[in-house]
Amino acid sequence: MTPEEFRRLGHAVIDWIADYREGIAQHPVMAQVAPGEVRARLPQAPPEQPEDMAAVLADLDRVVLPGLTHWQSPRFFGYFPANAPLAGVLGDLVSTGLGVIGLSWQSGPAITELEEVVTDWVRQMVGLSSAWSGVIQDTASTSTLVALLCARERSSGYAMARGGMQEGAAPLLVYASAESHSSVEKAALLAGFGRDHLRLVPCDEIHAMRPEALAAMVEADLARGLRPCAVVATTGTTAVTAIDPVGALAEVAQRHGLWLHVDAAMAGSAMILPECRALWEGIEGADSLVLNPHKWLGVPFDASLYYVRDPQHLVRVMSTNPSYLQSAADGQVKTLRDWGIPLGRRFRALKLWFVIREQGVAALRARLRRDLENARWLAAQVEVTPQWRVLAPVPLQTLCLRHEPPGLAGEALDRHTMGWAERINRSGAAYLTPAVLDGRWMVRVSIGAEATERADVAALWQAMRAAAEG
Amino acid sequence: MTPEEFRRLGHAVIDWIADYREGIAQHPVMAQVAPGEVRARLPQAPPEQPEDMAAVLADLDRVVLPGLTHWQSPRFFGYFPANAPLAGVLGDLVSTGLGVIGLSWQSGPAITELEEVVTDWVRQMVGLSSAWSGVIQDTASTSTLVALLCARERSSGYAMARGGMQEGAAPLLVYASAESHSSVEKAALLAGFGRDHLRLVPCDEIHAMRPEALAAMVEADLARGLRPCAVVATTGTTAVTAIDPVGALAEVAQRHGLWLHVDAAMAGSAMILPECRALWEGIEGADSLVLNPHKWLGVPFDASLYYVRDPQHLVRVMSTNPSYLQSAADGQVKTLRDWGIPLGRRFRALKLWFVIREQGVAALRARLRRDLENARWLAAQVEVTPQWRVLAPVPLQTLCLRHEPPGLAGEALDRHTMGWAERINRSGAAYLTPAVLDGRWMVRVSIGAEATERADVAALWQAMRAAAEG
Repeated sequence: MTPEEFRRLGHAVIDWIADYREGIAQHPVMAQVAPGEVRARLPQAPPEQPEDMAAVLADLDRVVLPGLTHWQSPRFFGYFPANAPLAGVLGDLVSTGLGVIGLSWQSGPAITELEEVVTDWVRQMVGLSSAWSGVIQDTASTSTLVALLCARERSSGYAMARGGMQEGAAPLLVYASAESHSSVEKAALLAGFGRDHLRLVPCDEIHAMRPEALAAMVEADLARGLRPCAVVATTGTTAVTAIDPVGALAEVAQRHGLWLHVDAAMAGSAMILPECRALWEGIEGADSLVLNPHKWLGVPFDASLYYVRDPQHLVRVMSTNPSYLQSAADGQVKTLRDWGIPLGRRFRALKLWFVIREQGVAALRARLRRDLENARWLAAQVEVTPQWRVLAPVPLQTLCLRHEPPGLAGEALDRHTMGWAERINRSGAAYLTPAVLDGRWMVRVSIGAEATERADVAALWQAMRAAAEG
Repeated sequence: MTPEEFRRLGHAVIDWIADYREGIAQHPVMAQVAPGEVRARLPQAPPEQPEDMAAVLADLDRVVLPGLTHWQSPRFFGYFPANAPLAGVLGDLVSTGLGVIGLSWQSGPAITELEEVVTDWVRQMVGLSSAWSGVIQDTASTSTLVALLCARERSSGYAMARGGMQEGAAPLLVYASAESHSSVEKAALLAGFGRDHLRLVPCDEIHAMRPEALAAMVEADLARGLRPCAVVATTGTTAVTAIDPVGALAEVAQRHGLWLHVDAAMAGSAMILPECRALWEGIEGADSLVLNPHKWLGVPFDASLYYVRDPQHLVRVMSTNPSYLQSAADGQVKTLRDWGIPLGRRFRALKLWFVIREQGVAALRARLRRDLENARWLAAQVEVTPQWRVLAPVPLQTLCLRHEPPGLAGEALDRHTMGWAERINRSGAAYLTPAVLDGRWMVRVSIGAEATERADVAALWQAMRAAAEG
């Protein structure tokens, strides 16, 4: 494809995306295809000869769109929002169009330096002190794995440089609540701790980790000769957006020399609102934290920000320095390959830069406040409606709710819950993702797609009542 | 940004990229900025109010372009090529514009199914049997980490589900050559093996791992009561594109029950040429392999393909299944979050799909053959020129060379080598990355940028002679 052909086809793709976003409310939110249906529409073997790009673009409508669940729809209330504002799409397009790779500072100085600048912008936006240094990772799963690797190496005095985890010392322990994200257990297992050494700390009645329970477990483990290593606190758990008390957990962590990692993947976006910062009070006592601008804040996936207070430790755990990557500038610059697992990096800072500049911080704050208000409005509707219950506090923009007709309980209630949620999803009118809370299925309504206005939330409420009560 | 504004600005960004690619030969290949220079041109704090997008786009020329090393330039001969063909740029643009995330099959069925299809297309293109299943990872570093985690868990009988690496059994060992990529050592250290348990297997005179040396080391380690676990073979090492003998190494691995991972990040692209497949003869005896279409083959970064013969084992090591990610379709579909570390996934299959369809396999083969011929041509020039030496075989498209004036040796020769390479880089005429071979610096010429034609290679040769001899 020559640059001239790219100009013509590129305009067509831009228009196609503009049309898609303009008409997004017309698509059923959840994909209506059956397993294997997309695959069946595609050739099993690659083409030997070039195809016409018109045919490729036509397949976007024929094959791709019907096979998608539409995350940017105003009626998308599943998982957590993953906003992809159009300014961010352009920033990412520039990154791909440039085709540059950050392997070292010299391989693309602006890749490193713009990343330093925008991660520091976000640091300021969320009210963190200048003691924190940030880097872009792909996802919170990876960030949390990096955090536990750093914790492991701090506790073991860099055993990785010697005998690794097989040195034969007493086991290292990781503490998290049962409400923590699945990526915490995955990270602990991949980092080699073993499931036996992942301690699930009890929660209080609103699903937040109990600091005194953590303290008691740590002390009991120490008394048994084990080695407490790290605690992962969550601000905004996935099921119910519960908020672990960071300050109190930090005290326990500091008393016993534990690494404190804060998974603020979801709630981190809210910290651009000063009125929300009480939710992670004590954050300055953590060792690492992750927040995902690719969720509610709105930067096209993937852009997960990982902040640490001791970047030298991070670099010591992650660094490699083969001759073919060395350059004369190395002593004076950041080498971001040593801040994470992958060697190469995309120019992901561009999409953050575009979104923050196009929006301005004030507009980002206004959008998040809109969503918080919508969540409070819906909670108020549910609370005053007979047979409906809000099951957990709503500190952010996600509601956990259930329709509980008289006489229904246990598995019958589960069937009812899954039934009405599935009817809404299959209708295409909105998309909801159920989850288990205290052993029973409930429905999460996660508000905050960029396009979602009050009218969409009101329409969802109507649809839920019709599906559950009808 | 409304869809209408996006239409106008998107066309402008497309045109900007088209202009950039059209005029790319006019930029100095290596960035000419000093450390901190890009950062100094940017505000330290984020904007409170929206900025005009015209100002943002103007900053691409003012701040970003002067701060880049231009990987798509026809005179880029550094590292390995990282081609970003314009069809792939469009595929990636569609992905970002759709703003969909693959968390589960249901969250975007086409994300999973198109990935199945295109990874199978590439499997066919490189001549692998249908016993292999593929998945897209970000980079080879991550793929190799996943491979060593899978090896660790196979050898330990899934100790991750019990006591992890601290179970107290004898240490697990990983074998690789000293020429293997830095990511192999990094993966072994992050996976918890420890540097003491990474064995560097001696190479032959052309820098390929010696299978009999591997066999002897494994037997000696077994005799000492240690547990050999994995061997990483490389086809196309970074410094000299040496080719480890996969077939012979697979025999040793099978004899002792070792996991064999093949790092074909670079040479994997070449396997679309039947005449190159002897370079990884015996590949069917491996357990896992990684090849990077984002290198020479040409799909915009990041797109690293990881293939395994036992996907159930991979899933067992990587899987998580929290309630909020479950859906009714789960039993009938692939769940790609369980094939790697991150939970969320971009719709990266689109860029592979666009490139393969727009080019056709025949044209991809023709481009790679052009580059191989250019490499042979340059090698022939160097070999017949007094005082110049080709230092290693040229099985692919990367040459290792040195200008060796009479009387220069040791560190003086290093200074001479680094001096002329640096002069070329600073001139902006071409970009080369030196590396250490057998303890001495040499210059790598890695041919294969999409835009590089014979005239560019000839011009490089003139520039090298002028810089070194002048």
